[in-house]
Amino acid sequence: SWIHSSGVLPQAAPPPQARFFPPAEGPMLPTGSFTNRVAFITGGGTGLGRAMTTTLSQLGATCIIASRKLDVLKQTAEEISRQTGNKVHAVQCDVKDPEAVSRCVDQVEAMTGLPDVVINNAAGNFVCPSERLTPNGWKSITDIVLNGTAFVTLELGRRLIQNQKGASFLAITTIYAESGSGFVAPSASAKAGVEALYKSLAAEWGRYGHRFNIIQPGPIRTKGAFSRLDPTGAFEKAMIGRIPTGRLGMPGEIANLAAYMSSEFATWMSGAVVRLDGGEYVSMAGEFNELRRVTPEQWKTMEAMIRGTKGS
Amino acid sequence: SWIHSSGVLPQAAPPPQARFFPPAEGPMLPTGSFTNRVAFITGGGTGLGRAMTTTLSQLGATCIIASRKLDVLKQTAEEISRQTGNKVHAVQCDVKDPEAVSRCVDQVEAMTGLPDVVINNAAGNFVCPSERLTPNGWKSITDIVLNGTAFVTLELGRRLIQNQKGASFLAITTIYAESGSGFVAPSASAKAGVEALYKSLAAEWGRYGHRFNIIQPGPIRTKGAFSRLDPTGAFEKAMIGRIPTGRLGMPGEIANLAAYMSSEFATWMSGAVVRLDGGEYVSMAGEFNELRRVTPEQWKTMEAMIRGTKGS
Amino acid sequence: SWIHSSGVLPQAAPPPQARFFPPAEGPMLPTGSFTNRVAFITGGGTGLGRAMTTTLSQLGATCIIASRKLDVLKQTAEEISRQTGNKVHAVQCDVKDPEAVSRCVDQVEAMTGLPDVVINNAAGNFVCPSERLTPNGWKSITDIVLNGTAFVTLELGRRLIQNQKGASFLAITTIYAESGSGFVAPSASAKAGVEALYKSLAAEWGRYGHRFNIIQPGPIRTKGAFSRLDPTGAFEKAMIGRIPTGRLGMPGEIANLAAYMSSEFATWMSGAVVRLDGGEYVSMAGEFNELRRVTPEQWKTMEAMIRGTKGS
Amino acid sequence: SWIHSSGVLPQAAPPPQARFFPPAEGPMLPTGSFTNRVAFITGGGTGLGRAMTTTLSQLGATCIIASRKLDVLKQTAEEISRQTGNKVHAVQCDVKDPEAVSRCVDQVEAMTGLPDVVINNAAGNFVCPSERLTPNGWKSITDIVLNGTAFVTLELGRRLIQNQKGASFLAITTIYAESGSGFVAPSASAKAGVEALYKSLAAEWGRYGHRFNIIQPGPIRTKGAFSRLDPTGAFEKAMIGRIPTGRLGMPGEIANLAAYMSSEFATWMSGAVVRLDGGEYVSMAGEFNELRRVTPEQWKTMEAMIRGTKGS
Ligand SMILES: NC(=O)c1ccc[n+]([C@@H]2O[C@H](COP(=O)([O-])OP(=O)(O)OC[C@H]3O[C@@H](n4cnc5c(N)ncnc54)[C@H](OP(=O)(O)O)[C@@H]3O)[C@@H](O)[C@H]2O)c1
Ligand SMILES: NC(=O)c1ccc[n+]([C@@H]2O[C@H](COP(=O)([O-])OP(=O)(O)OC[C@H]3O[C@@H](n4cnc5c(N)ncnc54)[C@H](OP(=O)(O)O)[C@@H]3O)[C@@H](O)[C@H]2O)c1
Ligand SMILES: NC(=O)c1ccc[n+]([C@@H]2O[C@H](COP(=O)([O-])OP(=O)(O)OC[C@H]3O[C@@H](n4cnc5c(N)ncnc54)[C@H](OP(=O)(O)O)[C@@H]3O)[C@@H](O)[C@H]2O)c1
Ligand SMILES: NC(=O)c1ccc[n+]([C@@H]2O[C@H](COP(=O)([O-])OP(=O)(O)OC[C@H]3O[C@@H](n4cnc5c(N)ncnc54)[C@H](OP(=O)(O)O)[C@@H]3O)[C@@H](O)[C@H]2O)c1
Repeated sequence: SWIHSSGVLPQAAPPPQARFFPPAEGPMLPTGSFTNRVAFITGGGTGLGRAMTTTLSQLGATCIIASRKLDVLKQTAEEISRQTGNKVHAVQCDVKDPEAVSRCVDQVEAMTGLPDVVINNAAGNFVCPSERLTPNGWKSITDIVLNGTAFVTLELGRRLIQNQKGASFLAITTIYAESGSGFVAPSASAKAGVEALYKSLAAEWGRYGHRFNIIQPGPIRTKGAFSRLDPTGAFEKAMIGRIPTGRLGMPGEIANLAAYMSSEFATWMSGAVVRLDGGEYVSMAGEFNELRRVTPEQWKTMEAMIRGTKGS
Repeated sequence: SWIHSSGVLPQAAPPPQARFFPPAEGPMLPTGSFTNRVAFITGGGTGLGRAMTTTLSQLGATCIIASRKLDVLKQTAEEISRQTGNKVHAVQCDVKDPEAVSRCVDQVEAMTGLPDVVINNAAGNFVCPSERLTPNGWKSITDIVLNGTAFVTLELGRRLIQNQKGASFLAITTIYAESGSGFVAPSASAKAGVEALYKSLAAEWGRYGHRFNIIQPGPIRTKGAFSRLDPTGAFEKAMIGRIPTGRLGMPGEIANLAAYMSSEFATWMSGAVVRLDGGEYVSMAGEFNELRRVTPEQWKTMEAMIRGTKGS
Repeated sequence: SWIHSSGVLPQAAPPPQARFFPPAEGPMLPTGSFTNRVAFITGGGTGLGRAMTTTLSQLGATCIIASRKLDVLKQTAEEISRQTGNKVHAVQCDVKDPEAVSRCVDQVEAMTGLPDVVINNAAGNFVCPSERLTPNGWKSITDIVLNGTAFVTLELGRRLIQNQKGASFLAITTIYAESGSGFVAPSASAKAGVEALYKSLAAEWGRYGHRFNIIQPGPIRTKGAFSRLDPTGAFEKAMIGRIPTGRLGMPGEIANLAAYMSSEFATWMSGAVVRLDGGEYVSMAGEFNELRRVTPEQWKTMEAMIRGTKGS
Repeated sequence: SWIHSSGVLPQAAPPPQARFFPPAEGPMLPTGSFTNRVAFITGGGTGLGRAMTTTLSQLGATCIIASRKLDVLKQTAEEISRQTGNKVHAVQCDVKDPEAVSRCVDQVEAMTGLPDVVINNAAGNFVCPSERLTPNGWKSITDIVLNGTAFVTLELGRRLIQNQKGASFLAITTIYAESGSGFVAPSASAKAGVEALYKSLAAEWGRYGHRFNIIQPGPIRTKGAFSRLDPTGAFEKAMIGRIPTGRLGMPGEIANLAAYMSSEFATWMSGAVVRLDGGEYVSMAGEFNELRRVTPEQWKTMEAMIRGTKGS
């Protein structure tokens, strides 16, 4: 395959350091941390959204999950509810459509009242050379990710403000929101837009009792993400090779961080952007990190050459 | 007025240090720097776009300016052309509309061939508490700023690639693209999206001979910007009070920077984000900068108190 | 006082939104999260360091606190130990001095073995116009903050690597590490240096089982910080006025975040920079956030003026 | 060699796109831009410092270059002066030593008066695994880069303020100052510190007529840098492979940017950080940029797979 032949992949087995970094299991926060609290999670039927819903539900929250596929949502809701004993509601909503969002929030108000916790997690993405992107291809991503997040956030925010109710808002973005990245330009742009929106509202809506924060996940194997970002599976190994902790993330790790950031333990956190990526970003971005490939023997040679240098 | 009564305004006259920072006049680059080069500038009929067009035209470029108001464009084109002796074309184009963009680029190809220099400068903005924003209000800004920039950039980029022609792309964003800002959330989000798009393409399309860079202007008095951001004129004085160089910027200063970044002197610049704001951003962002209000006498008192502190 | 007369202070009482953001009390992580784990905290005798030590000790860690004043350390160690029932060791160490650091780590190895958790929290700071800074004044801060952190981190890291032992490193920096700030330039520079060091090592030392992360606290009243940063107490009120959550932070809030980041729940976090500041940073940095002072009545006027604007 | 065998190097010849990005030659600014102006450049005897001195001298400045090796400085001074016809002074100065800095500024005052333009360019660096760094190795870099820059800047700044004279300060840092980088941790830390110092002073000393800006160069072949960062020459090819513009930078390109930023055309620029790196940083940092290795044929396959994906 292209990745193998291009030599990106130095190793097949997971890097040995992964043993130092085992993922934790189960929720981190105290039992009952979200009792009597309502959480609204977009894209909560699958992947990371499902994991965050599970954790909040385990911690006592009443959850509402919303996305396009009602059947998927309903099945997830039932499974989580059965596991945790707490109610999970499923509401159909295409976040691209402001009227659908408004109707969805009507339903939420009727079912549970306005939420205490909002997680904007719904997204779309696929890899594609930018010269092949049509305007519709561009909008298929940015309409969900940027406009969708804005419509959900502004609609809920407006109603919460009218009701003088505080809330914690969280958005799930990505590690390339700040740096940008080729081959996923619409996603990078839309996620950067989401981050700016959340930082803007953190400053503006604190006075209404609202907090706004962001998680930037690194690579975590979910069907939705990986089937469109790494359809051949070749890229995954390259990523693991450059992640300092030597492994992909697990959905439950994002869920514990999200629960903390949405909880009463984080009432002083607002406008924060938390990267959780095994160190991948700093590893990629630092100019000399490729020198990890230099062997101890080669270092000796190099040190001798450096010491032998005279002048500038 | 609200600003006066709220005490934001310590001084009426421009800060005395402004005399150290007089704006330069006239183009910086060597005469003829853009001879035989074609520059395409969106929003080139007014404000900063007009200033950049003037400078490029003075330096020898054939310019095309594009926006919605053909009459404004035509008048600007004629005035600049008369001043510089070089051709300036006016093309009507609503950048929100991908078909209009495509037709506009057809016209450009017919008139001048594909451009060597592209400047995405068109934008919309207005101040508004976010709880008053409707979905349409949100889209009225993001459709121009983010989608408009993407449509123009992707359409021109695709055709340039097909023609194996290199080009320099520049986007005009703002100093609050990274930090976000309340009361201009749609603009902050869209501009952040533009920055991520340009950084993404800088990485991806270098192989096709394209460079992508960004200018973040601070406050510069133009009718378009100030009438919608500071309709009462009260905020301007507050801004000047916190700008370290003690004055607003001038359109010609952005134009000289833009010309440099688009020129043969900057062929190694790509993926760069250049802030030109008189120092306003660092002045706002730094937690202790308000201590500029402490007088020398008060410093003496404070130093004595600090020296007298024992332990932690 | 200067702050009052300069009009920075719009309100005397805490902003009303503070009631939405009450600080949580007590540790967040499950009991026993740090049982059989050793934590080394510089500056652990006072302020935030003391709070982090208390939380880790409550969660089962054996702690070692190190700084210059052995009497302060001993008293803190005893008080915490009495409260939690877990051992807290006090070791004298001036982190500026590499030999003192080496001797201190010898003692740690002898007492507890090398640590699983390292928190670099020791620092010095004072407000001062930069033109009054002598080279010694500059070094009095940077030697502690930057060199001290480096010496502690490199010494512990080297020995941990030799022993093939993994560890979590955390550094406490500040919200002005990225933006810089006047009047605390040595601290800003040194803290920025610490952040770069930790991001560098996150990339480089993952292969040895080490993680490196950063917390940037906003303003939290501790004697050590506030007596040298706000000796008159006037600035505190100005800060509260611009913090979206309407209050200062509490040491226990930093402690819970630090415990999470140092725990088994965060093994996939490395190279992360987490701001915990009540939203102060985004509030300061966003160009239009001062518009929070505009009243609803004034917004109506402004909206009418904006709507009346024609053209650019 | 290690780099070849590890497969980092896909190509031997410069990437074909380099032909789109030829470096410009000669100064960009108008003749006489620096006439009657004095420029002080640390490390001006070699590499980038020499190039900046040459350009400023060509543009009319009286230059003073300062570093440790007086013989190198004198030869450079004479060669530049012969070429440009303008005076270049050589002053011995070890920037680590505050007293040497003070004596050096005494000499400057005597020879030319205080400077209008200050460029902090002196630095040291070498690649080294961080676990091999001694405290002295750490300080050998940070003392020059961070303390040296601070001592020069504070000493000149203090005297300029006393004389009520404005000035432009520029610091040369690096693209890994923000991201950090393994194997050059002391340099990353010190350069990050320099950036924070310059942003701090941009905010604080505007009122005295001073501007502070930063250039972050990407890789440019100079003896001083490359002999200690890439002694075998193997890494250079890897870097070129990931630079979107397909080539290293040239000293004259930095010199033209530095001249602009120090000139009367940039009086409104302060607190700015300008990256000039051929796009290397965004190319490294963006998570999916490695997909540049995917061939058009492989894209077809991948697109078919993505389109075939159903659900999340
Ligand atoms: N997994 C990773 O490695 C990774 C890395 C970085 C960031 N992220 C982010 O993490 C979040 C979750 O991703 P994931 O990996 O869990 O992938 P996923 O399972 O595909 O989740 C995406 C969810 O968004 C929902 N969605 C898509 N379009 C929607 C629309 N128009 N309206 C409402 N809901 C919509 C989908 O449900 P329906 O199809 O039912 O609408 C789906 O549940 C995303 O924001 C993603 O960008 C993931
Ligand atoms: N002035 C400042 O202080 C400042 C500060 C930061 C950033 N900026 C940025 O600088 C750029 C120029 O702003 P400016 O101050 O010069 O204001 P301006 O005069 O209002 O310029 C905006 C231009 O965009 C064009 N435009 C708006 N909507 C368009 C559309 N749908 N399609 C095509 N063109 C459209 C307008 O022309 P038509 O009406 O004819 O379409 C106008 O010429 C903007 O990107 C702005 O965000 C300005
Ligand atoms: N409080 C805030 O608002 C705030 C905000 C942002 C960041 N921070 C950061 O939080 C950390 C803790 O600050 P704090 O507010 O808790 O202040 P603090 O009580 O003054 O803590 C500083 C600690 O550093 C120790 N220390 C100072 N110099 C040392 C040296 N040379 N060697 C070893 N230890 C030394 C001190 O102990 P000895 O005197 O015994 O040496 C003291 O325990 C610092 O890194 C600070 O920069 C605080
Ligand atoms: N070349 C690149 O690829 C690159 C990339 C990023 C950043 N940079 C930065 O660009 C700047 C110039 O680097 P360069 O590539 O031109 O390398 P260089 O030729 O080695 O320049 C370094 C200069 O610093 C001087 N210097 C070193 N220690 C000093 C001290 N203690 N006191 C006074 N001067 C001292 C040296 O002169 P003496 O030996 O006579 O003291 C020398 O002239 C540096 O800041 C470097 O970090 C370079």
